[in-house]
Amino acid sequence: MKQPVYLNHAATSNHKFKKTVQTLCQYLEENNTINANRGFQNRDELNLIFEARQALADFFHGPDAAHVLFTANATTSLNMILNGLLRAGDHVLTTEVEHNAVARPLHLLETQQNVSVTYLHCEPDGTLDPKQIDALIRPETKVLVMSHASNVLGTILPVRECFQLAKSYGIITVLDSAQTAGFLPIDMEAMSIDVLAFTGHKSLMGLAGIGGFVLAKNMEKKISPWMSGGTGSASLSFEQPTFLPDKFEPGTMNTMGILSLKSSLNSINQLGLEKIRTHERALTKRFLKGLEELPVRVLGCREAIERVPVVSITATAFDSGELAQQLFDEYQIITRSGLHCSPLAHQTAGTVKSGAVRFSFGWNTTMDEIDYTLKALKEVLSE
Amino acid sequence: MKQPVYLNHAATSNHKFKKTVQTLCQYLEENNTINANRGFQNRDELNLIFEARQALADFFHGPDAAHVLFTANATTSLNMILNGLLRAGDHVLTTEVEHNAVARPLHLLETQQNVSVTYLHCEPDGTLDPKQIDALIRPETKVLVMSHASNVLGTILPVRECFQLAKSYGIITVLDSAQTAGFLPIDMEAMSIDVLAFTGHKSLMGLAGIGGFVLAKNMEKKISPWMSGGTGSASLSFEQPTFLPDKFEPGTMNTMGILSLKSSLNSINQLGLEKIRTHERALTKRFLKGLEELPVRVLGCREAIERVPVVSITATAFDSGELAQQLFDEYQIITRSGLHCSPLAHQTAGTVKSGAVRFSFGWNTTMDEIDYTLKALKEVLSE
Repeated sequence: MKQPVYLNHAATSNHKFKKTVQTLCQYLEENNTINANRGFQNRDELNLIFEARQALADFFHGPDAAHVLFTANATTSLNMILNGLLRAGDHVLTTEVEHNAVARPLHLLETQQNVSVTYLHCEPDGTLDPKQIDALIRPETKVLVMSHASNVLGTILPVRECFQLAKSYGIITVLDSAQTAGFLPIDMEAMSIDVLAFTGHKSLMGLAGIGGFVLAKNMEKKISPWMSGGTGSASLSFEQPTFLPDKFEPGTMNTMGILSLKSSLNSINQLGLEKIRTHERALTKRFLKGLEELPVRVLGCREAIERVPVVSITATAFDSGELAQQLFDEYQIITRSGLHCSPLAHQTAGTVKSGAVRFSFGWNTTMDEIDYTLKALKEVLSE
Repeated sequence: MKQPVYLNHAATSNHKFKKTVQTLCQYLEENNTINANRGFQNRDELNLIFEARQALADFFHGPDAAHVLFTANATTSLNMILNGLLRAGDHVLTTEVEHNAVARPLHLLETQQNVSVTYLHCEPDGTLDPKQIDALIRPETKVLVMSHASNVLGTILPVRECFQLAKSYGIITVLDSAQTAGFLPIDMEAMSIDVLAFTGHKSLMGLAGIGGFVLAKNMEKKISPWMSGGTGSASLSFEQPTFLPDKFEPGTMNTMGILSLKSSLNSINQLGLEKIRTHERALTKRFLKGLEELPVRVLGCREAIERVPVVSITATAFDSGELAQQLFDEYQIITRSGLHCSPLAHQTAGTVKSGAVRFSFGWNTTMDEIDYTLKALKEVLSE
């Protein structure tokens, strides 16, 4: 078995498809340059960015290529969306398992812009009852923003139910798909998603440094420019252009990242999302089963079907940092310990003090690695 | 001569050092993952990001590695810096040749946050008299932000003089080095630069999608967080961490971009910045000389020594878009026409209506390409 064993896919996938690596290396070696709208280029090169947008629009069932916007990562997307949507006096709903990519921008808006925030209650395993939304709606409620799945507990949230309910009140729905895009199918229309933030470097298996968001039709009119700058268009105006995609794409983009995403999406589509999910669920199931015999507390739901391929544990006698360090030092297993940028999820699980050790799996994770990790855990925990 | 002839380096350099391409391909093929602070990694991998910071700190004479912050591009940096520094009632000075990466964020602050903006006057060739600053200072003047050189006119601005004067009034100085980093030497201390915004994909010859800024000592305390999110640190708090570099680095970074920059800086240092500058100045000189015989107006200063390797022209009988298109269609010469994301510079030059055709040179541009381009221009203009 190849070492180290990488079980930190929820932070960044370490798998790149061979075809993606080939494509990127070829691009580098040909010394191409793409800087959309900023000079004469080969038609092929300009097409590349358009094709990447189209591939993402198809993948998420967005309206069209122009409604796909590229940013550096999901965090930048969520900052742009939340700051672009919310104004003083507005009320926003979110959940008790959000990542700091949502919680921190909302906190800034709350403390500096007089936006009020209500957190939908989650049970300790991360599950959430959509019905609570009815009682929390106010006349000034403008946005419901939530993660598709907790990056700590692994729990998949009932997005469709929550968003349909929210839409019935005319509330704008924003999904953070960082933990699910490339694992669960996401259909913006069927799931009533107005804005979908994504990142490229996790289950979409592109490079780190590329992400973006997809807008439902006409949503661009509701989001004010927050970041602004040159777009290679409407240059005469000091105002950010009002048309898509330029309105939300100031500055030079990460073209290698876009290329990686276009290529990896193609491979994911060829493989089929279901095949990936079936494999990663089988890994998760085996891991959960194995943990039953060990002296650990497993955070989140009991069944693999309720989860993304993310399993966090605590062990009474161990500090989470120590346990992760020991797994790395003695077994070369890479996990992630601590609070995983999500104090909310840890508060919900009651693990703020202990933290947890998170194991997260990807397309290239093998059953052997799961078994090896279970064996390692057993040995460490019985010391 | 290889075609197309790429003369659009002011938008994006198409040159990557062989060593950089090798390094990046090797990194891709080894399927490495780096996500700083977010999991156990090889020490080598964590070191890489630190080393890139250190290389940039050395290159710009910044205080230390922690004061080097990575973002997606200079535009993101400038948005973070300006929005983080300026509050309602503040006054900011800038110049009449700024790129929209400065002008648009300032316009947003002016129209939405009650910040007032004064533009330092530039002559039609882009030159600027620093002495005018004395008369424009107000008690509420907080920031002077300016480009090191106009991306349209090529003119190098007297940054040291302006910044020293500004510092004597206690004003914070912000430099947009997009057009000069990798061409002119930049010494933050000697030039009184408090905040230096840079981009990686122009004369620094890294990938598109990586940029950042460097802070003088203690400047971090004066800049509020504007973009926020997970940092893999101080996760329990909803507040963005107050320490560097985490305060300004929410979300996952472009690690390939950082690696490209570390590698290209190494090559630039080995080569010597002066050697690069000497070559690109010689190209610019030859091009300016050749243009003297053609029926064109050359924007900016007459001497190559007063410029970055950027030359924009107008030709009375030609629309700038048409001229650039013809150079591309008939001679495979890639330039950039229009307003170059800088309506201010074009207003200053009196070319808002006509636009201009911009020729910009890089380390891999050859004298033959200059001569070929002059010949092409002569033919097109005499048609």
